[in-house]
Amino acid sequence: MQTLEAIDAWQALWASRDRLAEQSINGLFAADAGRFEHFSLTAAGILLDYSKQPIDRQTRERLLEVARARDVAGQRDAMLAGEPINESEGRAVLHTALRVPDGGTGWAAPAITREVATTRSRMAELAAAIRDGRRTGATGQPIEHVINIGIGGSDLGPRLVLEALAPLADGPTVHFVANVDGVEWQQAMGQCDPERTLVLVVSKSFGTVETMANAHEAMAWLRRSVPSDTVLERQVLAITANLDRVRELGLDPELALPMWDWVGGRYSLWSAVGFAIMLAIGPTAFDEVLAGAHAMDRHFAEAPLESNMPVLLGLVSIFNGTLLDRRSQAVVPYTERLGRLSAYLQQLVMESNGKSVDRAGHPVSIPTAGAIWGQTGTPGQHAFFQALHQGTDVVPVDFVGVARPVAGERGDPLALTANLFAQSQALMQGRGDADMPAARRCPGNRPSNTILLKALTPATLGALIALYEHRTFVEAAVWGINAFDQFGVELGKVLADELKPLIAGGQAAEGVDGSTAGLIARYRDWRG
Amino acid sequence: MQTLEAIDAWQALWASRDRLAEQSINGLFAADAGRFEHFSLTAAGILLDYSKQPIDRQTRERLLEVARARDVAGQRDAMLAGEPINESEGRAVLHTALRVPDGGTGWAAPAITREVATTRSRMAELAAAIRDGRRTGATGQPIEHVINIGIGGSDLGPRLVLEALAPLADGPTVHFVANVDGVEWQQAMGQCDPERTLVLVVSKSFGTVETMANAHEAMAWLRRSVPSDTVLERQVLAITANLDRVRELGLDPELALPMWDWVGGRYSLWSAVGFAIMLAIGPTAFDEVLAGAHAMDRHFAEAPLESNMPVLLGLVSIFNGTLLDRRSQAVVPYTERLGRLSAYLQQLVMESNGKSVDRAGHPVSIPTAGAIWGQTGTPGQHAFFQALHQGTDVVPVDFVGVARPVAGERGDPLALTANLFAQSQALMQGRGDADMPAARRCPGNRPSNTILLKALTPATLGALIALYEHRTFVEAAVWGINAFDQFGVELGKVLADELKPLIAGGQAAEGVDGSTAGLIARYRDWRG
Repeated sequence: MQTLEAIDAWQALWASRDRLAEQSINGLFAADAGRFEHFSLTAAGILLDYSKQPIDRQTRERLLEVARARDVAGQRDAMLAGEPINESEGRAVLHTALRVPDGGTGWAAPAITREVATTRSRMAELAAAIRDGRRTGATGQPIEHVINIGIGGSDLGPRLVLEALAPLADGPTVHFVANVDGVEWQQAMGQCDPERTLVLVVSKSFGTVETMANAHEAMAWLRRSVPSDTVLERQVLAITANLDRVRELGLDPELALPMWDWVGGRYSLWSAVGFAIMLAIGPTAFDEVLAGAHAMDRHFAEAPLESNMPVLLGLVSIFNGTLLDRRSQAVVPYTERLGRLSAYLQQLVMESNGKSVDRAGHPVSIPTAGAIWGQTGTPGQHAFFQALHQGTDVVPVDFVGVARPVAGERGDPLALTANLFAQSQALMQGRGDADMPAARRCPGNRPSNTILLKALTPATLGALIALYEHRTFVEAAVWGINAFDQFGVELGKVLADELKPLIAGGQAAEGVDGSTAGLIARYRDWRG
Repeated sequence: MQTLEAIDAWQALWASRDRLAEQSINGLFAADAGRFEHFSLTAAGILLDYSKQPIDRQTRERLLEVARARDVAGQRDAMLAGEPINESEGRAVLHTALRVPDGGTGWAAPAITREVATTRSRMAELAAAIRDGRRTGATGQPIEHVINIGIGGSDLGPRLVLEALAPLADGPTVHFVANVDGVEWQQAMGQCDPERTLVLVVSKSFGTVETMANAHEAMAWLRRSVPSDTVLERQVLAITANLDRVRELGLDPELALPMWDWVGGRYSLWSAVGFAIMLAIGPTAFDEVLAGAHAMDRHFAEAPLESNMPVLLGLVSIFNGTLLDRRSQAVVPYTERLGRLSAYLQQLVMESNGKSVDRAGHPVSIPTAGAIWGQTGTPGQHAFFQALHQGTDVVPVDFVGVARPVAGERGDPLALTANLFAQSQALMQGRGDADMPAARRCPGNRPSNTILLKALTPATLGALIALYEHRTFVEAAVWGINAFDQFGVELGKVLADELKPLIAGGQAAEGVDGSTAGLIARYRDWRG
């Protein structure tokens, strides 16, 4: 495979990046009456409009040429086939296998497909029994509350999906506890009747510090509140790859649901990590989430690169971030239901692609993932949009909209949609009347994508998340980095363990830098 | 006043910025045993440690010299004295006057101080009467719920403060409705008994589209649910500068609380915009929030630049953002109570300083505000921290911690604090053992501030917010931009109004760009 720098098309793009940054988007529309048709596409209930990017046909062709030269298709196929593409950890990457419908073949090794299907039907049976009251708590009460204890990928995905699909929730109420500061735990506990509560402890290693601390709180609460010797076995469910530790904690390993080493945390909501979702919305709706993601997987696997939505979205992101050095991206969904999308994408994008060495361990020569952030519209318009319109930095935006409002939550869809479309228009057009004071002018020519969902359903939500997963993959494939390890988070854990006795103990904090020693001293003084 | 470029110290900094970016922070600690003492300071219950920045004494002195040459102190004094420093709108900027304690003088024109005091005592009387049940709803029921309808500054500040201080809330439960999509409104309405609900409509112009749409929903709900002719007068309270429109809507202008043109939306939580806060936590605790902010104001006004926390925080931000081109900053509070801080700061920082012309209307020559974003720790560690440790971009971080946990929310403070201190340590130290695979190494030398609050109280929260307000001011003063207008948001509103009939009506969308026309057509098709 050619290095990026050796690819003619990349060299041509790189050489012309100043001109590309100045390329008039308005001018591209003027020059091509069919531009919208040629720079938008639909898949799996989602429209992507990338026509408001300063990308003409030649630039797009060059970007596609880069994708071909970097063998994005081959890398994709290797992932889908279960090859150990997470080389630094020697693992396959098979979140797509989790979304293959029952009886589907050709997407992963048959053994994995069977294991996935078996787990999914175990989950569905258990969820149905809990939802309809056949399976109760230890004292015979029905389960009305679920507390999901997990952090990172064991938290963000289920949270995103359940906020998005809340109108469909007809099962137990789900509460999320991630942080160790006690705030979420207190809130959850305060709303739950212990005899009617199921606790999910979600951790691949079953050793995640925060999750285990909260699990111990939860177990102590159940033991002291529920008059039954079997409360832990009945009301605490482990979702993990480490059954030995489940046993050590006095939980029932038979009840545990599996996590697999070929699914990374940030790609795991489709697995048993999503059990809280299934409990809340039911197995059928959960399957629809998977089906939507699978529809996007099929599109990603089968569509030619030039009409492949994740490929194009990834190339646009590389165009902005790597070529034009626009180091942060905003994501603005025009529905409160997707209020967690930016937090979710911060993990997906920055944990996957916040890397600076390539697969061979050499430093990359170009910037990889920048920051991704956002708030919902229209509230974001009243917050940070000033900087998008008039700031010195060009921040590419992904606008995410929904055509059909959720029944019963109509709000003012006309105002919402008018604002959604007006913002990308305003960013592109700008305003510069000569008689206008400079403080009022907007430079314009600022790029955005619009991602329009037909409706916010389980299927389109699954497809939307899969779209961003594959976008992330495409970027990593072009940059030549491994999107599936996360060694950068290890050091902080090691140092935190070393600091604990210094913070807790009476001895002076020696052997640490002056800042850390000073902070510990002040903390101890103020804590009293 | 000298332009930035004409200042010797700036020239020296600019010329050495490549060296400064490589300056070893570890090395600075090795060279100066007293570094923590010399690069940290305490004010208003807050410790700022900026010793983990690649800033030595010479660099700091040069930054301070830039602040002097840009007359930051004089600009500060002009703001505090009520001069019309928001020149493009011809307005004074006096949020600091809102925090002057009763009887305090010398902070603004006496007429303004009196008006502020009068309003504050009206607010306190009304809040007390609502909280103790003397003032009821239209049918004589006590007020148990408050729905705050506002957007941007009329929403983010009260939300941040009430989440942070929730353990102190002993008044009516406050619900927030900002977006027009109906989600928040449905949630709020579903939790409120209309006879026991007070609706606050917060909008300076009383013409904000989103706020008025939600206000009309709320008024219709009250009219149809509460059997009283006086329900609107009794249960809807306007917070606005436009009393004529209050009257037009059938609300009681006598009950309305004022907003003033010398307080911008993003600086307004200290005014009647914070009435929801006062209702929830009571006038005394609200006064403590103001007192904490005032303590930071006094520090900002009186401390010499070299030991002035907002000045130093602002200069560090300019050092990273403008000199070293680190275009995004993360803010990571180690408590869920401050989960809204990054959303709040996105408005404060990016709406204030997302500008590209100076006060005279000339294009600025340097980058101004970049992106600011974040999630809480430790959850953020399991999300985007990978990129902070190993990404290609250096992202300066503000770590925000609390020494004394809130009573009853102890969680695991040791784990929390160990992680807080370990992360800044890890970012600085990195790890690079030669025998370690490249994928596991961390480059280190990544800068951060640690901002430690003695406890999360009304006073320290007020001081923290005021600290960031003044940091924002300092940056604007150095850059020479006006932090207090926001003309960039106008164009989107104009275009949204133009698009509404095109989206709603049957006619083809003509006269708009191809993307917008295509999006409207697809939207109509999918909406059905």
